[in-house]
Amino acid sequence: MYKKEIKVLDCTVRDGGLMNKWQFSDEFVKGVYDACVEAGIDYMEIGYKSSERAFSRKEMGPWKFCDDKDIRRIVGEGEPGVKLSAMCDIGRIDFDDIPQKSESAISMMRVACYVHQMDKAIALAHHCMDKGYETTINLMAVSKVNEHDLDEALNDAANSRVPIFYLVDSFGSMHCESTEHLMKKYSEAMPEKEIGIHAHNNMQLAMSNTITSVINGATMLDATLLGMGRGAGNCPIEILIAFLKNPKYRLLPLLKAIQEQVVPWQQKIDWGYHIPYLITGAMNEHPRSAMAWMDSEQKNDFVAFMKSMHDYELLE
Amino acid sequence: MYKKEIKVLDCTVRDGGLMNKWQFSDEFVKGVYDACVEAGIDYMEIGYKSSERAFSRKEMGPWKFCDDKDIRRIVGEGEPGVKLSAMCDIGRIDFDDIPQKSESAISMMRVACYVHQMDKAIALAHHCMDKGYETTINLMAVSKVNEHDLDEALNDAANSRVPIFYLVDSFGSMHCESTEHLMKKYSEAMPEKEIGIHAHNNMQLAMSNTITSVINGATMLDATLLGMGRGAGNCPIEILIAFLKNPKYRLLPLLKAIQEQVVPWQQKIDWGYHIPYLITGAMNEHPRSAMAWMDSEQKNDFVAFMKSMHDYELLE
Repeated sequence: MYKKEIKVLDCTVRDGGLMNKWQFSDEFVKGVYDACVEAGIDYMEIGYKSSERAFSRKEMGPWKFCDDKDIRRIVGEGEPGVKLSAMCDIGRIDFDDIPQKSESAISMMRVACYVHQMDKAIALAHHCMDKGYETTINLMAVSKVNEHDLDEALNDAANSRVPIFYLVDSFGSMHCESTEHLMKKYSEAMPEKEIGIHAHNNMQLAMSNTITSVINGATMLDATLLGMGRGAGNCPIEILIAFLKNPKYRLLPLLKAIQEQVVPWQQKIDWGYHIPYLITGAMNEHPRSAMAWMDSEQKNDFVAFMKSMHDYELLE
Repeated sequence: MYKKEIKVLDCTVRDGGLMNKWQFSDEFVKGVYDACVEAGIDYMEIGYKSSERAFSRKEMGPWKFCDDKDIRRIVGEGEPGVKLSAMCDIGRIDFDDIPQKSESAISMMRVACYVHQMDKAIALAHHCMDKGYETTINLMAVSKVNEHDLDEALNDAANSRVPIFYLVDSFGSMHCESTEHLMKKYSEAMPEKEIGIHAHNNMQLAMSNTITSVINGATMLDATLLGMGRGAGNCPIEILIAFLKNPKYRLLPLLKAIQEQVVPWQQKIDWGYHIPYLITGAMNEHPRSAMAWMDSEQKNDFVAFMKSMHDYELLE
């Protein structure tokens, strides 16, 4: 499945940090960075760009804010060996929090939004472009959006200057048919844009949905080391790279980072496929109730979790 | 994706037993059986039917042989609440080892073979049919078979009396395109037969390949509780049932068996997605080297495992 346009974005630190409030050691972040550089990964998302008015540094680690001084501890001076991206959540950042590109090691700002925030997302993305950044818009939770609202949002995106638009399966509820349907819809609505895919693994379909997206024209592929990420996690980057067999990528540096940096975190954080995440995914619900359950003493009482869900009879 | 022809076969005990030589307690097997009955699963594969001349009872548990007296301890007298199947490996069983159906709680014999054993497999399956059983032929390791040999085998199968033929991704190396290609090839070569799918999860594509097979006409779907099975394991039955949303199935009894019977085995056996299994899958190789690695002290040294593989540069 060789396509030269494909670009892979590692978001281990950004999405994995949702599980530990970005309390990663510099050694961890450097390990991921070195792996991305040596493996030829196209982008590494090093965290969120957030306002200190929205979050406390007492609670959140440095990768919730992505100050240049923190990034420089990892990547040194000069041009980083892999293009860095950071994610901006609408409402959690002000225009003034975005430095000029010339003062930042970050290359790309990715603006995450819900469908009712599309106008704000476009405005923020345009602002980032005007400051010199590459940008994307990542429309979250699309599996819950009704068709009319989605069509309007896609039309707005098509008329914007933002060059890349992401299909985001926030709840891990999509499969090959729904992925193909939305990829075709996005491509038809925005023929001039690049399309990206960000999948979650609640039903063990993150890798599959990423392949389906590639077959249907996606060129920006999000993935993380060992699938590390919120809840059921993401498309595992090592599977994606082993599968693509694209000569610009190398697998071994990723395996090295997995065994040295990521496996130790498996003892501490329960990301990846677990039954509570399956249940929220199959019900097309946000994983927050499953994450709370996985943090409780009853984490392995799957029957009780399912019965605790509103409307669980839909699945029973 | 409602299709009334779909039948789900649980092979937790049979395929999971490949990891522990079928040393399951009766409580475990009874837990799986009760779950299959209550969940409305169509078939439960309770083990292999093997000759005692081929294997020692000192080494192998009862589900390597599936004697009726062992089965009756689990299911009681009379007709079992779920149809039982057993798998026969060519060369590991003689015709005389197969009892008449009237003397057995087993409904279906599934004959597993490699491509060069197709004639023997058809002969054994016909023998089982003549003794009163439903039968299938499961052609293993098809991802390694060349097209000429496969066409000949499919032609032989088409001309047999055996009603069900399985697509088996033994090495977990297939994805949606190769699955669709083979499903179409099988359907065209054997328009009168039912087609089944047995997938492995080396690249986290077992569930996806099962869905792709359904879309392309497969009606017999193999799966196991929590994906328990050899190496990277199988399509997880709880995901399949949650996904199908078919009114004849229930999810809760499966979750109960998972938490009570299967999760405790996770502490003892490393089935499921692990990097060594990814590597053999991506290289389209038998998982035996990965299984040996996972049993060693170096199981988490993924870089060393990859370098130990012949021709690993193909993936590097």
